[in-house]
Amino acid sequence: MAPTSVAELGRRAKAASRVLATASGAVKDTTLRLAADLLEQHRSDILAANQSDVAEAEKAGASPTEMDRLRLTEARITGMAEGLRQVAVLADPVGEVVEGSVRPNGLRVERVRVPLGVVGIIYENRPNVTSDAAGLCLKAGNATMLRGSSSAIRSNMAIVACLRQAALKAGLPEDVIVLVEDTRREAAVEFMRLEGVIDCLIPRGGVSLLATIRAEATVPCVIDGDGNCHVYVDAGADLEMALSIVVNAKMQRPGVCNAAESLLVHREVADTFLPRAAGALEGVELVGDERARALVPGMGVADDDDFATEFLDLKLSVAVVDGLDQAIEHIARFGSGHSEAIVTNDHRAAERFCRQVDAGAVVVNASTRFVDGSELGLGAEIGISTQKLHARGPMGLRELTCTKYVVHGDGQVRG
Amino acid sequence: MAPTSVAELGRRAKAASRVLATASGAVKDTTLRLAADLLEQHRSDILAANQSDVAEAEKAGASPTEMDRLRLTEARITGMAEGLRQVAVLADPVGEVVEGSVRPNGLRVERVRVPLGVVGIIYENRPNVTSDAAGLCLKAGNATMLRGSSSAIRSNMAIVACLRQAALKAGLPEDVIVLVEDTRREAAVEFMRLEGVIDCLIPRGGVSLLATIRAEATVPCVIDGDGNCHVYVDAGADLEMALSIVVNAKMQRPGVCNAAESLLVHREVADTFLPRAAGALEGVELVGDERARALVPGMGVADDDDFATEFLDLKLSVAVVDGLDQAIEHIARFGSGHSEAIVTNDHRAAERFCRQVDAGAVVVNASTRFVDGSELGLGAEIGISTQKLHARGPMGLRELTCTKYVVHGDGQVRG
Repeated sequence: MAPTSVAELGRRAKAASRVLATASGAVKDTTLRLAADLLEQHRSDILAANQSDVAEAEKAGASPTEMDRLRLTEARITGMAEGLRQVAVLADPVGEVVEGSVRPNGLRVERVRVPLGVVGIIYENRPNVTSDAAGLCLKAGNATMLRGSSSAIRSNMAIVACLRQAALKAGLPEDVIVLVEDTRREAAVEFMRLEGVIDCLIPRGGVSLLATIRAEATVPCVIDGDGNCHVYVDAGADLEMALSIVVNAKMQRPGVCNAAESLLVHREVADTFLPRAAGALEGVELVGDERARALVPGMGVADDDDFATEFLDLKLSVAVVDGLDQAIEHIARFGSGHSEAIVTNDHRAAERFCRQVDAGAVVVNASTRFVDGSELGLGAEIGISTQKLHARGPMGLRELTCTKYVVHGDGQVRG
Repeated sequence: MAPTSVAELGRRAKAASRVLATASGAVKDTTLRLAADLLEQHRSDILAANQSDVAEAEKAGASPTEMDRLRLTEARITGMAEGLRQVAVLADPVGEVVEGSVRPNGLRVERVRVPLGVVGIIYENRPNVTSDAAGLCLKAGNATMLRGSSSAIRSNMAIVACLRQAALKAGLPEDVIVLVEDTRREAAVEFMRLEGVIDCLIPRGGVSLLATIRAEATVPCVIDGDGNCHVYVDAGADLEMALSIVVNAKMQRPGVCNAAESLLVHREVADTFLPRAAGALEGVELVGDERARALVPGMGVADDDDFATEFLDLKLSVAVVDGLDQAIEHIARFGSGHSEAIVTNDHRAAERFCRQVDAGAVVVNASTRFVDGSELGLGAEIGISTQKLHARGPMGLRELTCTKYVVHGDGQVRG
């Protein structure tokens, strides 16, 4: 049987979104808990589907990283179910009165948080994104339209079947979650162009997916972009603290967007700090500018391209700067507006860094790795926005909503 | 002399935006007041420039509406100056701590309001938009890149000269306000594609400008779109109140986006209400569905196209509905998500209308004409967004900003 067309899925999701938008928090939370239970009950079906995907990906010569992202285990399915249960206990963002006032003419004005409608998620490999993303969208009152990679299609279908069944059991239309099963590229492009249907498209994937989105998408998007994150070690830094922050920011999980990619060191402390840092960063390939290389034997050469690159690997670019201003200039030139850290005991330097660096998050005396929805207190996260409009930095439930003005009068007309 | 290239203007505005982003509120307010004074001092130069524009537009056969929008008067220049002075007294949105908390690990997390950077404004005819828009952008800490219509180029240049001089006098770079003087369409398209320079593009104009933006723009946009606004007169309405609201919403200023374009009447009150409404709406062309026409002799036929049209004129489409659900369905089908009103004394009907109607603003027992930045308490407005991301409904200073996370630690690293 041919998969349902993208347009038809869009129509169904839109209709379901109108029911979901005014569903109670209790119904949404019940859906999430039922979905968690169903994922666990259907664990073996999901693993079997995943094994078919994995076998096919192996035949197609997928890389070890791709294979790791694609592969589900008993533990990963438990993690998915637990994730849904955690979302269920978060506060419902819908209905929050963001602000309100009474105008001189007696009009009572409120701005109220409401769902976006239909959220599109386009993603690669990882089948766990299917339930993670759909769970957050559902909690925020949005229908979810999912488009995963073709390599994970069987896994995604098995997971989505559980989620849809949970919705139905809880009294919601099953189309509050729909999966595009058509794995052709044309279907993905059609998906990105469902104007009037998709209220917000959130791509979760690498550089090539983002490039396609930028070229093809016509629906509103929130981009979870690159993180070319810097740690600047100021002259006023506690160097022990700086060392542990740099090591953590680079090495604790190098493949993620909030890992550090570049180290800037004030020239006054460079000769003390850099050789020690090089020792502590064992296993990390260092590339640097001339002044950095003079202090660390064997450090490779970094050119502008290196300073502009998000390595997502055990590699770090290093530059010695004349001071705070030069560090800020360097970040303005090469940063991607994600997360930027300073290590310093100098209050005025910290203040100025926070004011002048233009990024989703600025961090003083802590690792860039904390720039994450859970760590910053958002409860859960659907991504980290590197754009300025709508959402900036980690995106939680609130970023999956918008607001509407609700105005109550008693017959007022405008003079 | 050839006008400065769009790319070069963009570079200048970007550099200036970094200075303006951290300028004090006092400096920004001084700039606004100086600009107001300069507009008044250079009134005769501005009027002379405008007269050249007007003469040329007349030769080119511009319509009376276009001529009215283009023409400046002494009073209009006073209005522009007063507008800037009013923006100066508004609270500075920059630096507002939107929320904050301390995490269990001691990290202090704040979300702080910051400027967007460079705001692009592309607009038609009205030269007063030049100072109105630039004033709001400046107050919110943004450099403004303006692109008006070629028909107003001399007026816009004269106004921008005053604004730039004010910035310089106040100690800011004059490039916090730049005007694209290249009036070719190619320059407009280049402007819409200044990725990495324009952080937010706000088009102010009609259907054809918006179509161009949708087709050509690659920078982030906030769309000030159509207002196909409805007034629904419920069975539970006070019909006197309904009459005055309908008349006000349609007739007080028919050419604006928050004017009503469509009247929906509950069948139980249609025979009482519609003939009276038709009388009160003297001078308004009414087109309706079959049930409405049966009650108002001489009413024209309305088809789906009419119900979908923003007339922006003394014309109103009318439909009789079976009840609240059908009214909500009609609005879901034909509305543009701008402003939707219900007139009713029935509390549950009002509640349900507010919850179920998906629009930037829902209004109970008042005219749709109140959906406006000043009327809703935003102080001033740069437009009314019909999109859901970033800004929805009237956009004031706050919508010209974004936020950044500011995280203070004491050496925390992630485990």
